[in-house]
Parts: sequence; C-alpha cells; structure tokens
Amino acid sequence: MEKKTPHVVIVGAGFGGLAVARSLRNAPVRMTIVDKTNHHLFQPLLYQVAMAGLSPAEIAYPIRAIVRKQKNVTVLMEEVTAVDLERRVVLMGERELAYDFLVLAAGAQTNYFGHDDWMPYAVGLKDLDDAVEIRRRVLVAFEAAEREEEAGDRAKLLTFVIIGGGPTGVELAGSLAELARHALASDFRVINPSSAKILLLEAGNRILPSFPEELSERAVRQLERLGVQVRTGALVTGINRDGVQLKGGEFIASSTVLWCAGVSASPLTKTLGVPLDRSGRVLVEPDLSLPGHADAFAIGDLAAFLHQDGKLLPGLAPVAMQQGAFVAEAIEDTLAGKSRKRFRYVDRGSLATIGRSAAVAEFGRVRLSGFTAWLAWLLIHIFFLIGFRNRFIVFFDWLWSYLTYQRGARLITGHRMDPGAPVSGKPES
Amino acid sequence: MEKKTPHVVIVGAGFGGLAVARSLRNAPVRMTIVDKTNHHLFQPLLYQVAMAGLSPAEIAYPIRAIVRKQKNVTVLMEEVTAVDLERRVVLMGERELAYDFLVLAAGAQTNYFGHDDWMPYAVGLKDLDDAVEIRRRVLVAFEAAEREEEAGDRAKLLTFVIIGGGPTGVELAGSLAELARHALASDFRVINPSSAKILLLEAGNRILPSFPEELSERAVRQLERLGVQVRTGALVTGINRDGVQLKGGEFIASSTVLWCAGVSASPLTKTLGVPLDRSGRVLVEPDLSLPGHADAFAIGDLAAFLHQDGKLLPGLAPVAMQQGAFVAEAIEDTLAGKSRKRFRYVDRGSLATIGRSAAVAEFGRVRLSGFTAWLAWLLIHIFFLIGFRNRFIVFFDWLWSYLTYQRGARLITGHRMDPGAPVSGKPES
Repeated sequence: MEKKTPHVVIVGAGFGGLAVARSLRNAPVRMTIVDKTNHHLFQPLLYQVAMAGLSPAEIAYPIRAIVRKQKNVTVLMEEVTAVDLERRVVLMGERELAYDFLVLAAGAQTNYFGHDDWMPYAVGLKDLDDAVEIRRRVLVAFEAAEREEEAGDRAKLLTFVIIGGGPTGVELAGSLAELARHALASDFRVINPSSAKILLLEAGNRILPSFPEELSERAVRQLERLGVQVRTGALVTGINRDGVQLKGGEFIASSTVLWCAGVSASPLTKTLGVPLDRSGRVLVEPDLSLPGHADAFAIGDLAAFLHQDGKLLPGLAPVAMQQGAFVAEAIEDTLAGKSRKRFRYVDRGSLATIGRSAAVAEFGRVRLSGFTAWLAWLLIHIFFLIGFRNRFIVFFDWLWSYLTYQRGARLITGHRMDPGAPVSGKPES
Repeated sequence: MEKKTPHVVIVGAGFGGLAVARSLRNAPVRMTIVDKTNHHLFQPLLYQVAMAGLSPAEIAYPIRAIVRKQKNVTVLMEEVTAVDLERRVVLMGERELAYDFLVLAAGAQTNYFGHDDWMPYAVGLKDLDDAVEIRRRVLVAFEAAEREEEAGDRAKLLTFVIIGGGPTGVELAGSLAELARHALASDFRVINPSSAKILLLEAGNRILPSFPEELSERAVRQLERLGVQVRTGALVTGINRDGVQLKGGEFIASSTVLWCAGVSASPLTKTLGVPLDRSGRVLVEPDLSLPGHADAFAIGDLAAFLHQDGKLLPGLAPVAMQQGAFVAEAIEDTLAGKSRKRFRYVDRGSLATIGRSAAVAEFGRVRLSGFTAWLAWLLIHIFFLIGFRNRFIVFFDWLWSYLTYQRGARLITGHRMDPGAPVSGKPES
C-alpha cells in the first residue's frame, strides 16, 4: 500500500513561512502556502515606502513567482480565519484545508493596547496599504500647510509625531526629517518644509531599547542632528484629530501621528485554544511546536520563545528565518522517525538606520554607528531582497536619492481627505 | 505708478497645463497651477501600471518638483469646483482665486454615457487609482479562479472583457494577453492562465478608428496572434456583476470588465455657462479662448477644436502640448498689445502599442506596424517621460520584462473584495 504524501500547510509567506517552504524543497512532502496577500513583503524597508523613497513593488515580490519552480508547493491567496487543531484543518471562512503538519507564520499586526479608537488618527506600519496611507498623510500635510493661512493651524499641519522609539519609529523619524529638509525643501513658496517639527516619543527611558545603551545615545545624537526632537519618558494617554495628549498634561497639536509603539500576534492565535502571552503570541515548546500538538508549529512574530539568555526573542526577520529552517528540519526528522532538536537562535547582530550615512549596528561585540553602520545596513538589505529586478532598482533608487537628495515616489494616491479628519485607517479592513 | 504683474491661473498640470507654464517661464507674469493631485501623470503609459508592468511612481512626477526652479510659478493642490468668468475668479470650495488670464486644462474623465450604474462593474482608466484598481481586479480574478471549484464560475473569472477599441482598449487587451500568457503562465497549479479569454468589444465597424484602415487591420491580426478576440459591431446594452449584455441578446459572463469606451471633459466646464459639445467640451474660438471671454482659454481634452481638415482634434498629448504653447504665446501677445494668431495643429503622427514587439504607427505618409512601430513607440515614450530617474527605471523595467517575460509590479493592494462584487469604483469618490 502506497503511503500518502504528507501535506504541510504554511500560513503566511513572510520571512518565516518562505524559509519553511524553501527548506522543504527536496523533502517528501507537498505544501500549501496560504497568505491573504499575493506578495512576500520585505518589511525592513517598508518605512522607505511610507517616506516616498521606494515604490511598493520594489519591496514586494509575488509569492507564486518565488515558488514557481518548486513543484511541491501550491499557493492560495486566502485569509485563514481559524484553526481546528483537533480535526487538523485550517479554516478560510467556510472552506477547510486539511493538514498533516501546520506552520503558523502569519506575523504581527499593529496593537493599540486597547485604544482602538486611536487607530484613525495614528496609522501603524505593517503592510503596503499602511505605507501608502502614511505617505499620503505626510505629503498631504505639507500641501495643506502651504494653503493654510492661520498660523496655529499651519503649525499643527507641520508637526509630525511618531510614537514609539523602536527601530521602526527611529527609521521613520529620520527619514521624515530628511524628506522635509532635502526632498521638499525648495518646492514650496509659502511654507518652509525644513521648519517642520518632528517629534519621536518613547514611553521608556531610552530609544532602541533592544540595542546597547551606547548605541541608543548615538542614535539620539544622529536624530537630533537631523532636527528630530527625541523625547523619552513620554507616555501617550490620548490621541485625537487635534493631536497627542501626554501624561502630565501636555498636549501636542499635530495633524499627522504615526504609531510604532506596539504590535501583537495575528488574531489567528486566539482561535487555537492554547496558552498565549499578553501580545497574543503562542508559548511554544522548545521545538517551536504548540503545547500538546506536535504536528503544529508557530514561528516568527507568532511565537513567544525564550532565548538561551532568558530573554524573549524579538520580532525580527532573522529570527523568523532561522525558526522556519528549524521547523522544516523538525518535520523532516519526524517523517524519518528521528527525534527533534531544540531550537537555538544564533544572533548575527542588529541594525537600525537613521538617515543618510547614519545608522547604528551591533554584530556581537562590534558596535558601529554613522557611515560604516549605514553602509553595512545598505549592503545587507540589498542582499536579502528577493529578485534581481528589485535589488537593482532599489540600489539605483538609493544611489539616485543619495546624489540628488530627491525621493522617487512622492505620490499622493488613494483616499482623498483632509489630514486630521476622522478616517478609517484602511479601506475595508 | 507700477503695473501689477498679471496673474495666470492654470487649472490642471497635465501635458497642456505644464506646456503653458513652461512656455511662460520668461514672461512678465506670475502663475498659479491648481491641480487636485500632487503629480503630473504620464497618461500614455497608464495602461502599463494597470497591467502590472510599471509602478505608479514611474509614470508620475511631483508638480512642485517640475516647476521647482521656475520662480514665477506657485502650485496649489486643490480641486477647482467652479469658475466665475464675470468676476474672474476660480472657486475651490469656499476659497477663491482671482486671475487675469485663465487656462482650463483639467482633462477628461471616464464617461458611461448616462449609465453610471455600470461604473462599479466596469472600471475606467484615467488616473493612478484607477490603474491600481484595474491591476487589483485582474490579479484577484486569477487568484480567485485558482481556488474556484465550479467550472462555470471559474470560466467567468477567467473571462476579461475590454469595452472600447480605441488606443487604450487595444493597449490594455494586448498587455493583458501577454500578462496571462507569459508572466503568469507557470505560476498556477490548478488553472492555466494562458487559457484566459480576453475579449475586445468595439461598437463601431473597426478598432483604432482614428488610424488608417490598413493599420486597424494589422492591429487586429497582432491582437489575435496574442489570443485576444476582437469583436466589432458589438454594442453593449448592459453591465452587471455577472458580465456584459450585448445588443442582439448575447450575454458574456465575466468577472472583470474594463471600460475604455468613452471620456467626457471635466465637469468643471458645466460651471462656465458657455456652449459645450455633447462630451462637455468647450466650443472654443480659433485662438482657443472661451466665446466672449478673451482672457480665458480651454485646451486639451476640455476643448472642442475643429482641425483645419474639418475633424475634431483628438484627446492626445501632442494636441494638449501644442495648445498649451499656443495659449502661452497668445497671452504674451495680448500683454504686448499684439493681435493673437489662430491655433493650428501640426500632426506629427500617432502610435498605439499592442504588445511585445507589436505596435502600429502613422507618421504622415509613413505607416509602420510590428517591431519597427514598437521600437518607435518605445523611444518616443522614454523621451517624453519627465525626469531622469523615471526614464532610467522605465527603460530598465522594459528591458527586464523583455528579457524575462515577467512584470515588475504584480501587486494586489488596496481594497480587498471579491471580484464581481458591487463595489464603488474608487475609494471615497
């Protein structure tokens, strides 16, 4: 009697999900990748789309094209709404898909910590639609300021508040400062875009808390050189169409507020019936499987995994990729009747960019900042982009921007509305 | 007593409006360009955005950046809602802007000839949001077909109807056929995208009616070689979520219908109180001024101008550009106390592309088709794009697509919904 080929269902085609599919390319399995979008998104560069430097297509690649030659993979563009671990099926609305092994790699979403009413006024940055919406709001604010005659309203339009001092907040703040000071500087007749006020608010006592303290300080200095005001210990207690309320009573009038203060796991984890942490992440076993379900795994932003040093692994691409490769191996081991290993993360370093020739980097004991860190950041990001076309065009766009101080994608598209108006964050969602 | 610098208000930063601004760069006037978007759009390549070949930013350029160095120009991103010719003001909602000379160059919009109820089911192609929406619908149809199990529904999802056999319809049909046959061909496991049915419907007796008959026939042959079914004398009497109803009783089941059958002038012309033609275009004087208002002009898609050969000038970029330059001269003549000339259009030829190495072109007596016409088309379009970056990236994208048969912008973004669902054509509008 012939044995049926085991079916591996991978939910999500981010760094983790794709690593699983690639690592299993020669394994005796068939796979189905289910993703609600049609593309893999290179999230580390998403902030550059939001700041008009890159086009959406330059950092995204069709999932189907990525796995075109891998004949054991099927791709479904559909949203997984729930998982039934007992019956071993994933649900997509009314439709079901049975699995022998399941890898949950659906990633994270913006989390307002119970303040979903802030969402219309403070966009998060998790997908291309978010990025294009941020780009629209930022560029529209400058346009509206140009025609605004009342000084207070104009100042409000030219005040940008970025909440959250992690890598995304730092990158957005630096890039926004450069947009205002270089790309837009000579393009207006009434306002002076360089005078825009850019505030980076962090509730904790330092920005980039996952980096060594020394690099946090250097990042602050690099941001301040660009004109960003960095404020730590700034706890946000309210956001509305007029601006941001801080604990202690201060109110910052602003038309454009960006939210980089938190993410939580995809709500899919809530349907699993397994223990989750506060951010909705699954408390996975040492082999990344779900407690009590050796045939199902959670990786990347969906998994709460304690690092060997006792800290929770951060939501970074290298973590997801290593976990994806590990889970592929665990599935192969299981099929071969071998016992599974325990996952161990190899930290190869972390990077955050601040602006033109400015970044911070940590590779083990080596700590870099300024131009060297920026160059390392640039090369690593080009290298990891998928597809020759994207690598080439992103490289060209960066070179062109570096030489001309311009941005290649200064487009206002999508919804047309007043900044500050109570808008739904995204079409339909 | 010092004379006040005359104020020229230009409504619209398309080919016509920009030609006015450029031609008046050394004139003793100050100008305000008012446009509802922040970018000049290179409309001849818009169909390539709709068919996932180019990114929006590659065919658009910020208006402010175009006129950055021209200090006598101010740009306002605002929508002109009406014109008061007597009081010499344009209205933008409640705000007013006074002019000494007015150039209306607001372009055209999709026209459903009284059937606005067709709009949700048949997208037109006039701006970047339209193009991204068409791209989304086309790519989503293939994705939905891949998961559809019912044969009839799957066939409906794989049937694409393009209504209107002018240059836009021809270009969309050719490009869609190539998308299905090349870029998507090996990416699906269940469906065969090459088997997609692409219908080009034309109510008249031939496609490309503005071209010589011989070239229409060659275009049909080139389209058929790509697998497009060209049907002339096909009059559409209804469009709904299930497909297209033809006069004579035939119903074509289709989830994706594109409307290229008509445009009308911007509704702004209706506020003028001057005689218009059926498409809302102003019946302009020989100097392109409005009847009875020598200080106001209409150009490009807003003007109904009888060519010296007795035909109405078509809505093409060269017409708008020549008219823009002419109006600039007419304004300078008026300021210098000279009498104005009459506008005369110099026809330098027309081009339409059908696909890879396939196009038709007419330059006076020279009629080209196939590869030569395609090469001419390619060089002319690269040449007229604004900005070195855009020229370079478009050229690179074309080269890459030509060599790899792939498309650079196969992204599904924006609204997420079922194809065929009754959707509003665009966010908010």
